[in-house]
Amino acid sequence: MLFGQITIVGVGLIGGSVGLAAKARGVAKRVVGIGRDRVCLHRAVLRGAIDVFNVDFERGIADADLIVVCTPVDQIAAVIREAAFRCGAGTVFTDGGSTKKGIAEAVGKLPPGVHFVPAHPLAGSERNGVENARADLFDGRLTILTPTDGTDPAAVERVEAFWRALGSRVVRMSADEHDRVLATTSHLPHAVAAGVAGVTPPEWLTLSAGGFRDVTRIAGGDPWLWAAIFEANRDAVLAALDRFTDRLAEFRRLLENGDRDGLVDWLADAKRVRDALGT
Amino acid sequence: MLFGQITIVGVGLIGGSVGLAAKARGVAKRVVGIGRDRVCLHRAVLRGAIDVFNVDFERGIADADLIVVCTPVDQIAAVIREAAFRCGAGTVFTDGGSTKKGIAEAVGKLPPGVHFVPAHPLAGSERNGVENARADLFDGRLTILTPTDGTDPAAVERVEAFWRALGSRVVRMSADEHDRVLATTSHLPHAVAAGVAGVTPPEWLTLSAGGFRDVTRIAGGDPWLWAAIFEANRDAVLAALDRFTDRLAEFRRLLENGDRDGLVDWLADAKRVRDALGT
Repeated sequence: MLFGQITIVGVGLIGGSVGLAAKARGVAKRVVGIGRDRVCLHRAVLRGAIDVFNVDFERGIADADLIVVCTPVDQIAAVIREAAFRCGAGTVFTDGGSTKKGIAEAVGKLPPGVHFVPAHPLAGSERNGVENARADLFDGRLTILTPTDGTDPAAVERVEAFWRALGSRVVRMSADEHDRVLATTSHLPHAVAAGVAGVTPPEWLTLSAGGFRDVTRIAGGDPWLWAAIFEANRDAVLAALDRFTDRLAEFRRLLENGDRDGLVDWLADAKRVRDALGT
Repeated sequence: MLFGQITIVGVGLIGGSVGLAAKARGVAKRVVGIGRDRVCLHRAVLRGAIDVFNVDFERGIADADLIVVCTPVDQIAAVIREAAFRCGAGTVFTDGGSTKKGIAEAVGKLPPGVHFVPAHPLAGSERNGVENARADLFDGRLTILTPTDGTDPAAVERVEAFWRALGSRVVRMSADEHDRVLATTSHLPHAVAAGVAGVTPPEWLTLSAGGFRDVTRIAGGDPWLWAAIFEANRDAVLAALDRFTDRLAEFRRLLENGDRDGLVDWLADAKRVRDALGT
Protein backbone atom coordinates (compact mmCIF):
# COMPACT_ATOMS: atom_id res chain seq x y z
CA MET A 1 0.00 0.00 0.00
CA LEU A 2 1.51 3.27 -1.09
CA PHE A 3 -1.24 5.35 0.49
CA GLY A 4 -3.75 5.15 3.26
CA GLN A 5 -6.51 7.23 1.71
CA ILE A 6 -6.62 8.78 -1.71
CA THR A 7 -9.39 11.16 -2.62
CA ILE A 8 -10.41 11.63 -6.24
CA VAL A 9 -12.13 14.90 -7.11
CA GLY A 10 -14.13 14.43 -10.32
CA VAL A 11 -14.95 10.75 -10.87
CA GLY A 12 -15.40 10.62 -14.64
CA LEU A 13 -13.42 8.67 -17.23
CA ILE A 14 -9.98 9.60 -15.84
CA GLY A 15 -10.94 9.87 -12.17
CA GLY A 16 -12.92 6.65 -12.33
CA SER A 17 -10.03 4.84 -14.01
CA VAL A 18 -7.64 6.16 -11.36
CA GLY A 19 -9.94 4.64 -8.73
CA LEU A 20 -10.35 1.30 -10.52
CA ALA A 21 -6.61 1.01 -11.13
CA ALA A 22 -5.74 2.06 -7.56
CA LYS A 23 -8.06 -0.56 -6.09
CA ALA A 24 -7.12 -3.30 -8.56
CA ARG A 25 -3.44 -2.76 -7.82
CA GLY A 26 -3.71 -2.20 -4.09
CA VAL A 27 -2.33 1.32 -4.27
CA ALA A 28 -4.47 2.65 -1.39
CA LYS A 29 -6.38 1.28 1.58
CA ARG A 30 -9.35 3.50 0.88
CA VAL A 31 -10.50 5.46 -2.17
CA VAL A 32 -12.88 8.36 -1.61
CA GLY A 33 -14.68 10.16 -4.43
CA ILE A 34 -15.84 13.77 -4.45
CA GLY A 35 -18.11 15.26 -7.05
CA ARG A 36 -21.16 17.40 -7.58
CA ASP A 37 -23.38 14.79 -9.20
CA ARG A 38 -24.70 12.26 -6.68
CA VAL A 39 -25.93 9.93 -9.43
CA CYS A 40 -22.46 9.73 -11.00
CA LEU A 41 -20.88 9.12 -7.61
CA HIS A 42 -23.34 6.31 -6.89
CA ARG A 43 -22.47 4.79 -10.22
CA ALA A 44 -18.77 5.06 -9.36
CA VAL A 45 -19.31 3.15 -6.13
CA LEU A 46 -21.32 0.47 -7.96
CA ARG A 47 -18.54 0.12 -10.52
CA GLY A 48 -16.03 -0.22 -7.71
CA ALA A 49 -14.09 2.86 -8.76
CA ILE A 50 -14.39 4.36 -5.26
CA ASP A 51 -15.17 2.88 -1.86
CA VAL A 52 -17.31 5.78 -0.66
CA PHE A 53 -18.25 9.19 -1.89
CA ASN A 54 -18.75 12.51 -0.29
CA VAL A 55 -20.59 15.45 -1.72
CA ASP A 56 -19.27 17.48 1.21
CA PHE A 57 -15.91 18.74 0.03
CA GLU A 58 -14.35 19.27 3.43
CA ARG A 59 -15.20 15.80 4.72
CA GLY A 60 -14.11 14.21 1.44
CA ILE A 61 -10.61 15.60 1.66
CA ALA A 62 -10.15 14.99 5.39
CA ASP A 63 -7.57 12.24 6.05
CA ALA A 64 -6.51 12.05 2.39
CA ASP A 65 -2.81 11.37 1.88
CA LEU A 66 -3.11 12.04 -1.83
CA ILE A 67 -5.76 14.11 -3.61
CA VAL A 68 -6.11 13.43 -7.33
CA VAL A 69 -7.98 16.21 -9.14
CA CYS A 70 -9.64 14.93 -12.33
CA THR A 71 -12.13 17.71 -13.03
CA PRO A 72 -12.25 19.61 -16.34
CA VAL A 73 -9.01 21.64 -16.74
CA ASP A 74 -10.64 24.99 -15.98
CA GLN A 75 -11.64 23.84 -12.48
CA ILE A 76 -8.46 22.07 -11.37
CA ALA A 77 -6.60 25.08 -9.93
CA ALA A 78 -9.62 26.32 -7.99
CA VAL A 79 -10.24 22.86 -6.52
CA ILE A 80 -6.63 22.57 -5.42
CA ARG A 81 -6.56 26.02 -3.84
CA GLU A 82 -9.83 25.41 -2.05
CA ALA A 83 -8.66 22.06 -0.70
CA ALA A 84 -5.10 23.09 0.10
CA PHE A 85 -6.14 25.50 2.80
CA ARG A 86 -8.42 22.96 4.51
CA CYS A 87 -6.32 19.80 4.45
CA GLY A 88 -3.54 18.80 6.78
CA ALA A 89 0.19 19.40 6.26
CA GLY A 90 1.73 16.51 4.35
CA THR A 91 -1.13 16.26 1.87
CA VAL A 92 0.03 15.84 -1.71
CA PHE A 93 -1.99 16.84 -4.79
CA THR A 94 -1.73 15.64 -8.34
CA ASP A 95 -4.08 16.09 -11.29
CA GLY A 96 -5.04 14.62 -14.64
CA GLY A 97 -5.32 17.80 -16.67
CA SER A 98 -4.45 17.96 -20.39
CA THR A 99 -2.73 21.34 -20.01
CA LYS A 100 -0.15 22.18 -17.40
CA LYS A 101 1.30 25.70 -17.40
CA GLY A 102 -1.84 27.72 -16.71
CA ILE A 103 -2.96 25.35 -13.95
CA ALA A 104 0.36 25.58 -12.09
CA GLU A 105 0.31 29.38 -12.38
CA ALA A 106 -3.28 29.58 -11.12
CA VAL A 107 -2.53 27.24 -8.21
CA GLY A 108 0.36 29.48 -7.13
CA LYS A 109 1.78 29.22 -3.66
CA LEU A 110 0.32 26.61 -1.30
CA PRO A 111 0.44 26.44 2.53
CA PRO A 112 3.62 24.99 4.08
CA GLY A 113 3.77 21.21 3.86
CA VAL A 114 1.12 20.95 1.12
CA HIS A 115 2.46 20.05 -2.32
CA PHE A 116 1.11 19.89 -5.86
CA VAL A 117 2.81 17.75 -8.50
CA PRO A 118 1.09 18.39 -11.86
CA ALA A 119 0.50 15.34 -14.03
CA HIS A 120 -1.01 14.47 -17.41
CA PRO A 121 -1.69 10.79 -18.11
CA LEU A 122 -1.74 10.39 -21.91
CA ALA A 123 -4.79 8.19 -21.86
CA GLY A 124 -8.34 8.99 -22.69
CA SER A 125 -11.17 8.34 -25.01
CA GLU A 126 -13.87 10.19 -26.87
CA ARG A 127 -16.21 8.52 -24.37
CA ASN A 128 -16.57 10.23 -21.02
CA GLY A 129 -17.96 9.30 -17.68
CA VAL A 130 -17.22 6.69 -15.03
CA GLU A 131 -19.22 4.15 -17.06
CA ASN A 132 -16.31 4.10 -19.53
CA ALA A 133 -13.59 4.02 -16.88
CA ARG A 134 -11.20 1.06 -16.99
CA ALA A 135 -8.71 -0.35 -14.50
CA ASP A 136 -6.19 -0.75 -17.33
CA LEU A 137 -6.58 2.73 -18.85
CA PHE A 138 -3.04 3.71 -17.84
CA ASP A 139 -1.39 0.37 -18.60
CA GLY A 140 1.76 1.03 -20.58
CA ARG A 141 0.70 4.61 -21.28
CA LEU A 142 2.81 7.62 -20.50
CA THR A 143 2.16 10.05 -17.67
CA ILE A 144 3.95 13.38 -17.89
CA LEU A 145 4.89 15.14 -14.64
CA THR A 146 5.71 18.84 -14.76
CA PRO A 147 7.27 19.73 -11.40
CA THR A 148 9.30 22.92 -11.15
CA ASP A 149 12.61 23.48 -9.37
CA GLY A 150 10.57 24.60 -6.39
CA THR A 151 8.43 21.45 -6.12
CA ASP A 152 9.18 19.33 -3.05
CA PRO A 153 11.35 16.40 -4.27
CA ALA A 154 9.77 13.90 -1.88
CA ALA A 155 6.29 14.82 -3.14
CA VAL A 156 7.48 14.37 -6.74
CA GLU A 157 8.80 10.91 -5.84
CA ARG A 158 5.52 9.91 -4.21
CA VAL A 159 3.43 11.14 -7.15
CA GLU A 160 5.73 9.44 -9.63
CA ALA A 161 5.40 6.20 -7.65
CA PHE A 162 1.62 6.67 -7.67
CA TRP A 163 1.26 6.99 -11.44
CA ARG A 164 3.69 4.10 -11.95
CA ALA A 165 1.67 2.00 -9.53
CA LEU A 166 -1.41 2.64 -11.72
CA GLY A 167 0.49 1.02 -14.60
CA SER A 168 1.86 3.98 -16.53
CA ARG A 169 5.37 4.96 -17.46
CA VAL A 170 6.39 8.40 -16.20
CA VAL A 171 8.51 11.17 -17.68
CA ARG A 172 9.19 14.66 -16.36
CA MET A 173 9.42 17.85 -18.38
CA SER A 174 8.65 21.54 -18.02
CA ALA A 175 5.04 22.71 -18.18
CA ASP A 176 6.02 24.97 -21.07
CA GLU A 177 7.41 22.14 -23.14
CA HIS A 178 4.45 19.91 -22.27
CA ASP A 179 1.95 22.47 -23.48
CA ARG A 180 3.87 23.22 -26.66
CA VAL A 181 4.22 19.54 -27.63
CA LEU A 182 0.68 18.52 -26.68
CA ALA A 183 -0.74 21.42 -28.69
CA THR A 184 0.54 19.55 -31.75
CA THR A 185 0.13 15.92 -30.70
CA SER A 186 -3.27 16.20 -29.01
CA HIS A 187 -5.06 19.55 -29.24
CA LEU A 188 -4.46 20.18 -32.96
CA PRO A 189 -5.68 16.68 -33.93
CA HIS A 190 -8.85 17.32 -31.96
CA ALA A 191 -9.57 20.64 -33.68
CA VAL A 192 -8.87 19.10 -37.06
CA ALA A 193 -11.07 16.05 -36.44
CA ALA A 194 -13.91 18.33 -35.37
CA GLY A 195 -13.28 20.52 -38.43
CA VAL A 196 -13.69 17.58 -40.80
CA ALA A 197 -16.84 16.35 -39.04
CA GLY A 198 -18.15 19.91 -38.96
CA VAL A 199 -18.08 20.34 -42.75
CA THR A 200 -19.68 16.95 -43.46
CA PRO A 201 -23.43 16.94 -44.12
CA PRO A 202 -24.85 14.06 -42.02
CA GLU A 203 -26.62 12.64 -45.08
CA TRP A 204 -23.20 11.93 -46.62
CA LEU A 205 -22.09 9.72 -43.72
CA THR A 206 -23.35 6.56 -45.40
CA LEU A 207 -20.82 7.30 -48.14
CA SER A 208 -17.84 7.29 -45.79
CA ALA A 209 -15.46 4.50 -44.86
CA GLY A 210 -12.77 3.67 -42.33
CA GLY A 211 -10.61 6.69 -43.08
CA PHE A 212 -13.33 9.18 -42.19
CA ARG A 213 -14.23 7.11 -39.14
CA ASP A 214 -10.65 7.18 -37.83
CA VAL A 215 -9.93 10.82 -38.62
CA THR A 216 -13.12 12.08 -36.96
CA ARG A 217 -13.36 9.64 -34.02
CA ILE A 218 -12.24 12.10 -31.33
CA ALA A 219 -14.71 14.70 -32.60
CA GLY A 220 -17.19 12.72 -30.51
CA GLY A 221 -15.47 14.04 -27.36
CA ASP A 222 -17.19 16.34 -24.88
CA PRO A 223 -17.45 19.93 -26.26
CA TRP A 224 -17.23 21.55 -22.81
CA LEU A 225 -14.15 19.62 -21.74
CA TRP A 226 -12.41 20.41 -25.00
CA ALA A 227 -13.35 24.08 -25.17
CA ALA A 228 -11.72 24.42 -21.74
CA ILE A 229 -8.58 22.59 -22.90
CA PHE A 230 -8.22 24.79 -25.99
CA GLU A 231 -8.61 27.95 -23.93
CA ALA A 232 -6.18 26.73 -21.28
CA ASN A 233 -3.53 26.23 -23.97
CA ARG A 234 -4.57 28.98 -26.34
CA ASP A 235 -1.22 30.38 -27.46
CA ALA A 236 0.37 27.02 -28.18
CA VAL A 237 -2.77 25.80 -29.95
CA LEU A 238 -2.89 28.91 -32.14
CA ALA A 239 0.77 28.39 -33.06
CA ALA A 240 0.19 24.71 -33.94
CA LEU A 241 -2.90 25.65 -35.92
CA ASP A 242 -0.91 28.17 -37.96
CA ARG A 243 1.78 25.62 -38.78
CA PHE A 244 -0.93 23.19 -39.86
CA THR A 245 -2.77 25.78 -41.95
CA ASP A 246 0.46 26.73 -43.70
CA ARG A 247 1.17 23.10 -44.46
CA LEU A 248 -2.32 22.59 -45.87
CA ALA A 249 -1.95 25.75 -47.96
CA GLU A 250 1.16 24.16 -49.47
CA PHE A 251 -0.90 21.08 -50.34
CA ARG A 252 -3.50 23.31 -51.96
CA ARG A 253 -0.89 25.10 -54.04
CA LEU A 254 0.69 21.82 -55.22
CA LEU A 255 -2.70 20.41 -56.16
CA GLU A 256 -3.79 23.57 -57.95
CA ASN A 257 -0.55 23.63 -59.95
CA GLY A 258 -0.79 19.94 -60.87
CA ASP A 259 2.61 19.38 -59.25
CA ARG A 260 2.49 15.59 -58.95
CA ASP A 261 6.05 15.20 -57.67
CA GLY A 262 5.49 17.91 -55.10
CA LEU A 263 2.29 16.22 -53.91
CA VAL A 264 4.04 12.87 -53.61
CA ASP A 265 6.84 14.47 -51.56
CA TRP A 266 4.32 16.28 -49.34
CA LEU A 267 2.49 13.00 -48.69
CA ALA A 268 5.73 11.04 -48.25
CA ASP A 269 6.90 13.46 -45.51
CA ALA A 270 3.69 12.70 -43.61
CA LYS A 271 3.98 8.97 -44.21
CA ARG A 272 7.51 8.93 -42.78
CA VAL A 273 6.25 10.49 -39.55
CA ARG A 274 3.23 8.19 -39.32
CA ASP A 275 5.25 5.07 -40.12
CA ALA A 276 7.66 6.00 -37.30
CA LEU A 277 4.72 5.81 -34.89
CA GLY A 278 3.70 2.29 -35.89
CA THR A 279 0.19 0.92 -36.12
CA MET B 1 -21.19 -19.17 -60.75
CA LEU B 2 -21.91 -15.71 -62.03
CA PHE B 3 -18.94 -15.71 -64.39
CA GLY B 4 -16.72 -18.12 -66.26
CA GLN B 5 -13.49 -16.11 -66.17
CA ILE B 6 -12.83 -12.83 -64.46
CA THR B 7 -9.57 -11.02 -65.03
CA ILE B 8 -8.20 -8.63 -62.45
CA VAL B 9 -5.81 -5.96 -63.68
CA GLY B 10 -3.69 -4.74 -60.77
CA VAL B 11 -3.60 -7.33 -57.98
CA GLY B 12 -2.89 -5.17 -54.91
CA LEU B 13 -5.02 -4.63 -51.83
CA ILE B 14 -8.28 -4.09 -53.73
CA GLY B 15 -7.59 -6.37 -56.70
CA GLY B 16 -6.29 -9.11 -54.42
CA SER B 17 -9.33 -8.83 -52.19
CA VAL B 18 -11.61 -9.02 -55.24
CA GLY B 19 -9.86 -12.25 -56.18
CA LEU B 20 -10.00 -13.75 -52.68
CA ALA B 21 -13.67 -12.83 -52.28
CA ALA B 22 -14.58 -14.09 -55.77
CA LYS B 23 -12.94 -17.43 -55.11
CA ALA B 24 -14.22 -17.79 -51.55
CA ARG B 25 -17.76 -17.10 -52.70
CA GLY B 26 -17.68 -19.06 -55.95
CA VAL B 27 -18.30 -16.01 -58.10
CA ALA B 28 -16.15 -17.21 -61.02
CA LYS B 29 -14.79 -20.50 -62.35
CA ARG B 30 -11.40 -18.99 -63.00
CA VAL B 31 -9.66 -15.84 -61.77
CA VAL B 32 -6.79 -14.48 -63.85
CA GLY B 33 -4.45 -11.74 -62.67
CA ILE B 34 -2.60 -9.23 -64.81
CA GLY B 35 0.13 -6.93 -63.56
CA ARG B 36 3.57 -5.62 -64.27
CA ASP B 37 5.31 -7.02 -61.23
CA ARG B 38 5.91 -10.77 -61.54
CA VAL B 39 6.87 -11.07 -57.84
CA CYS B 40 3.56 -9.55 -56.74
CA LEU B 41 1.63 -11.79 -59.10
CA HIS B 42 3.42 -14.88 -57.75
CA ARG B 43 2.51 -13.77 -54.25
CA ALA B 44 -1.12 -13.34 -55.35
CA VAL B 45 -1.20 -16.93 -56.64
CA LEU B 46 0.36 -18.21 -53.42
CA ARG B 47 -2.23 -16.29 -51.38
CA GLY B 48 -4.96 -17.82 -53.52
CA ALA B 49 -6.16 -14.43 -54.76
CA ILE B 50 -5.83 -15.53 -58.40
CA ASP B 51 -5.61 -18.93 -60.09
CA VAL B 52 -3.04 -17.91 -62.66
CA PHE B 53 -1.36 -14.76 -63.77
CA ASN B 54 -0.32 -13.36 -67.05
CA VAL B 55 2.16 -10.60 -67.66
CA ASP B 56 1.06 -10.63 -71.29
CA PHE B 57 -1.88 -8.27 -71.38
CA GLU B 58 -3.55 -9.68 -74.47
CA ARG B 59 -3.50 -13.30 -73.24
CA GLY B 60 -4.65 -12.23 -69.78
CA ILE B 61 -7.80 -10.59 -71.07
CA ALA B 62 -8.65 -13.28 -73.61
CA ASP B 63 -11.76 -15.26 -72.58
CA ALA B 64 -12.57 -12.88 -69.70
CA ASP B 65 -16.31 -12.33 -69.13
CA LEU B 66 -15.58 -9.57 -66.63
CA ILE B 67 -12.46 -7.45 -66.36
CA VAL B 68 -11.96 -5.70 -63.00
CA VAL B 69 -9.44 -2.88 -63.20
CA CYS B 70 -7.83 -2.18 -59.82
CA THR B 71 -4.79 -0.16 -60.85
CA PRO B 72 -4.04 3.32 -59.44
CA VAL B 73 -6.74 5.74 -60.62
CA ASP B 74 -4.54 7.49 -63.17
CA GLN B 75 -4.07 4.24 -65.12
CA ILE B 76 -7.61 2.85 -65.10
CA ALA B 77 -8.93 4.61 -68.21
CA ALA B 78 -5.87 3.72 -70.29
CA VAL B 79 -6.09 0.06 -69.24
CA ILE B 80 -9.77 -0.11 -70.18
CA ARG B 81 -9.25 1.55 -73.55
CA GLU B 82 -6.30 -0.71 -74.34
CA ALA B 83 -8.23 -3.84 -73.38
CA ALA B 84 -11.57 -2.83 -74.89
CA PHE B 85 -10.29 -2.92 -78.43
CA ARG B 86 -8.70 -6.35 -78.01
CA CYS B 87 -11.39 -8.26 -76.15
CA GLY B 88 -14.47 -9.92 -77.52
CA ALA B 89 -17.93 -8.37 -77.75
CA GLY B 90 -19.88 -9.05 -74.56
CA THR B 91 -16.96 -8.28 -72.29
CA VAL B 92 -17.90 -6.14 -69.32
CA PHE B 93 -15.50 -3.88 -67.40
CA THR B 94 -15.71 -2.51 -63.92
CA ASP B 95 -13.09 -0.83 -61.74
CA GLY B 96 -12.21 -0.06 -58.14
CA GLY B 97 -11.13 3.56 -58.53
CA SER B 98 -11.67 6.17 -55.79
CA THR B 99 -12.70 8.84 -58.30
CA LYS B 100 -15.24 8.37 -61.04
CA LYS B 101 -15.95 11.32 -63.35
CA GLY B 102 -12.53 11.79 -64.92
CA ILE B 103 -12.13 8.05 -65.50
CA ALA B 104 -15.46 7.75 -67.31
CA GLU B 105 -14.63 10.77 -69.47
CA ALA B 106 -11.19 9.41 -70.32
CA VAL B 107 -12.60 5.98 -71.19
CA GLY B 108 -15.08 7.60 -73.59
CA LYS B 109 -16.79 5.52 -76.26
CA LEU B 110 -16.05 1.79 -76.37
CA PRO B 111 -16.50 -0.68 -79.26
CA PRO B 112 -20.01 -2.10 -79.78
CA GLY B 113 -20.90 -4.79 -77.23
CA VAL B 114 -18.17 -3.81 -74.80
CA HIS B 115 -19.39 -2.09 -71.62
CA PHE B 116 -17.82 -0.27 -68.69
CA VAL B 117 -19.72 0.09 -65.40
CA PRO B 118 -17.66 2.33 -63.08
CA ALA B 119 -17.52 1.25 -59.42
CA HIS B 120 -15.98 2.39 -56.16
CA PRO B 121 -15.97 -0.09 -53.28
CA LEU B 122 -15.72 1.96 -50.07
CA ALA B 123 -13.18 -0.35 -48.52
CA GLY B 124 -9.50 0.04 -48.13
CA SER B 125 -6.70 0.42 -45.71
CA GLU B 126 -3.56 2.42 -45.23
CA ARG B 127 -1.79 -0.87 -45.97
CA ASN B 128 -1.34 -1.74 -49.62
CA GLY B 129 -0.43 -4.80 -51.56
CA VAL B 130 -1.87 -8.26 -52.05
CA GLU B 131 -0.27 -9.33 -48.72
CA ASN B 132 -2.93 -7.23 -46.98
CA ALA B 133 -5.81 -8.41 -49.18
CA ARG B 134 -8.74 -10.08 -47.42
CA ALA B 135 -11.64 -12.20 -48.64
CA ASP B 136 -13.97 -10.22 -46.36
CA LEU B 137 -12.77 -6.72 -47.32
CA PHE B 138 -16.10 -5.89 -48.97
CA ASP B 139 -18.34 -7.60 -46.40
CA GLY B 140 -21.14 -5.23 -45.47
CA ARG B 141 -19.33 -2.31 -47.09
CA LEU B 142 -20.85 -0.08 -49.74
CA THR B 143 -19.94 -0.14 -53.41
CA ILE B 144 -21.00 2.88 -55.44
CA LEU B 145 -21.80 2.37 -59.14
CA THR B 146 -21.85 5.41 -61.39
CA PRO B 147 -23.43 4.30 -64.67
CA THR B 148 -24.79 6.98 -67.00
CA ASP B 149 -28.05 6.96 -68.96
CA GLY B 150 -26.04 5.54 -71.84
CA THR B 151 -24.64 2.56 -69.95
CA ASP B 152 -26.02 -0.80 -71.06
CA PRO B 153 -28.64 -1.83 -68.44
CA ALA B 154 -27.78 -5.53 -68.64
CA ALA B 155 -24.11 -4.74 -68.00
CA VAL B 156 -25.08 -2.60 -64.99
CA GLU B 157 -27.13 -5.51 -63.61
CA ARG B 158 -24.26 -7.94 -64.05
CA VAL B 159 -21.76 -5.61 -62.38
CA GLU B 160 -24.15 -4.88 -59.55
CA ALA B 161 -24.63 -8.63 -59.05
CA PHE B 162 -20.84 -9.05 -59.07
CA TRP B 163 -20.14 -6.52 -56.29
CA ARG B 164 -23.05 -7.89 -54.27
CA ALA B 165 -21.68 -11.40 -54.69
CA LEU B 166 -18.38 -10.17 -53.17
CA GLY B 167 -20.34 -9.22 -50.06
CA SER B 168 -20.94 -5.51 -50.49
CA ARG B 169 -24.10 -3.47 -50.63
CA VAL B 170 -24.51 -1.46 -53.81
CA VAL B 171 -25.90 2.01 -54.54
CA ARG B 172 -25.98 3.95 -57.78
CA MET B 173 -25.39 7.66 -58.24
CA SER B 174 -23.93 10.04 -60.77
CA ALA B 175 -20.15 10.30 -61.10
CA ASP B 176 -20.42 14.02 -60.35
CA GLU B 177 -22.20 13.45 -57.06
CA HIS B 178 -19.83 10.63 -56.14
CA ASP B 179 -16.77 12.80 -56.63
CA ARG B 180 -18.25 15.75 -54.76
CA VAL B 181 -19.27 13.65 -51.73
CA LEU B 182 -16.10 11.57 -51.61
CA ALA B 183 -13.98 14.72 -51.74
CA THR B 184 -15.37 15.49 -48.28
CA THR B 185 -15.79 11.99 -46.81
CA SER B 186 -12.54 10.47 -48.07
CA HIS B 187 -10.10 12.78 -49.84
CA LEU B 188 -10.28 15.71 -47.39
CA PRO B 189 -9.72 13.43 -44.35
CA HIS B 190 -6.64 12.03 -46.06
CA ALA B 191 -5.14 15.46 -46.77
CA VAL B 192 -5.89 16.57 -43.21
CA ALA B 193 -4.41 13.43 -41.64
CA ALA B 194 -1.25 13.91 -43.69
CA GLY B 195 -1.19 17.59 -42.74
CA VAL B 196 -1.23 16.78 -39.01
CA ALA B 197 1.47 14.12 -39.39
CA GLY B 198 3.48 16.47 -41.58
CA VAL B 199 3.76 19.20 -38.92
CA THR B 200 4.69 16.77 -36.12
CA PRO B 201 8.40 16.42 -35.32
CA PRO B 202 9.05 12.65 -35.05
CA GLU B 203 10.71 13.14 -31.64
CA TRP B 204 7.33 14.25 -30.27
CA LEU B 205 5.61 11.00 -31.22
CA THR B 206 6.33 9.41 -27.83
CA LEU B 207 4.19 12.21 -26.35
CA SER B 208 1.11 11.32 -28.39
CA ALA B 209 -1.85 9.11 -27.55
CA GLY B 210 -4.81 7.45 -29.20
CA GLY B 211 -6.26 10.64 -30.66
CA PHE B 212 -3.16 11.39 -32.71
CA ARG B 213 -2.92 7.74 -33.71
CA ASP B 214 -6.50 7.70 -35.05
CA VAL B 215 -6.41 11.09 -36.76
CA THR B 216 -3.16 10.34 -38.60
CA ARG B 217 -3.62 6.62 -39.33
CA ILE B 218 -4.43 7.03 -43.04
CA ALA B 219 -1.40 9.29 -43.50
CA GLY B 220 0.48 5.98 -43.72
CA GLY B 221 -1.17 5.37 -47.12
CA ASP B 222 0.77 5.18 -50.37
CA PRO B 223 1.85 8.70 -51.51
CA TRP B 224 1.72 7.80 -55.22
CA LEU B 225 -1.77 6.30 -55.07
CA TRP B 226 -3.07 9.29 -53.15
CA ALA B 227 -1.39 11.98 -55.25
CA ALA B 228 -3.16 10.41 -58.24
CA ILE B 229 -6.51 10.40 -56.42
CA PHE B 230 -6.20 14.06 -55.41
CA GLU B 231 -5.33 15.07 -58.97
CA ALA B 232 -8.13 12.99 -60.44
CA ASN B 233 -10.64 14.82 -58.22
CA ARG B 234 -8.90 18.17 -58.04
CA ASP B 235 -11.79 20.62 -58.27
CA ALA B 236 -13.98 18.86 -55.73
CA VAL B 237 -11.02 18.39 -53.36
CA LEU B 238 -10.11 22.09 -53.59
CA ALA B 239 -13.71 23.03 -52.81
CA ALA B 240 -13.84 20.68 -49.80
CA LEU B 241 -10.49 22.00 -48.62
CA ASP B 242 -11.76 25.56 -48.76
CA ARG B 243 -14.85 24.70 -46.72
CA PHE B 244 -12.62 22.99 -44.16
CA THR B 245 -10.15 25.88 -44.04
CA ASP B 246 -12.99 28.36 -43.49
CA ARG B 247 -14.36 26.24 -40.69
CA LEU B 248 -10.96 26.01 -39.02
CA ALA B 249 -10.53 29.79 -39.38
CA GLU B 250 -13.79 30.16 -37.46
CA PHE B 251 -12.35 27.96 -34.71
CA ARG B 252 -9.21 30.13 -34.64
CA ARG B 253 -11.24 33.31 -34.34
CA LEU B 254 -13.39 31.90 -31.51
CA LEU B 255 -10.29 30.74 -29.64
CA GLU B 256 -8.46 34.03 -30.14
CA ASN B 257 -11.48 35.97 -28.87
CA GLY B 258 -11.92 33.73 -25.83
CA ASP B 259 -15.47 32.97 -26.97
CA ARG B 260 -16.15 29.90 -24.84
CA ASP B 261 -19.80 29.53 -25.85
CA GLY B 262 -18.87 29.86 -29.51
CA LEU B 263 -16.18 27.18 -29.14
CA VAL B 264 -18.60 24.83 -27.41
CA ASP B 265 -21.14 25.33 -30.22
CA TRP B 266 -18.47 24.79 -32.87
CA LEU B 267 -17.39 21.54 -31.19
CA ALA B 268 -20.98 20.44 -30.55
CA ASP B 269 -21.81 20.78 -34.26
CA ALA B 270 -18.99 18.37 -35.03
CA LYS B 271 -19.98 15.99 -32.25
CA ARG B 272 -23.53 15.78 -33.58
CA VAL B 273 -22.23 14.68 -36.98
CA ARG B 274 -19.74 12.20 -35.50
CA ASP B 275 -22.29 10.75 -33.08
CA ALA B 276 -24.67 10.19 -36.01
CA LEU B 277 -22.01 7.94 -37.56
CA GLY B 278 -21.67 5.71 -34.51
CA THR B 279 -18.49 4.07 -33.24
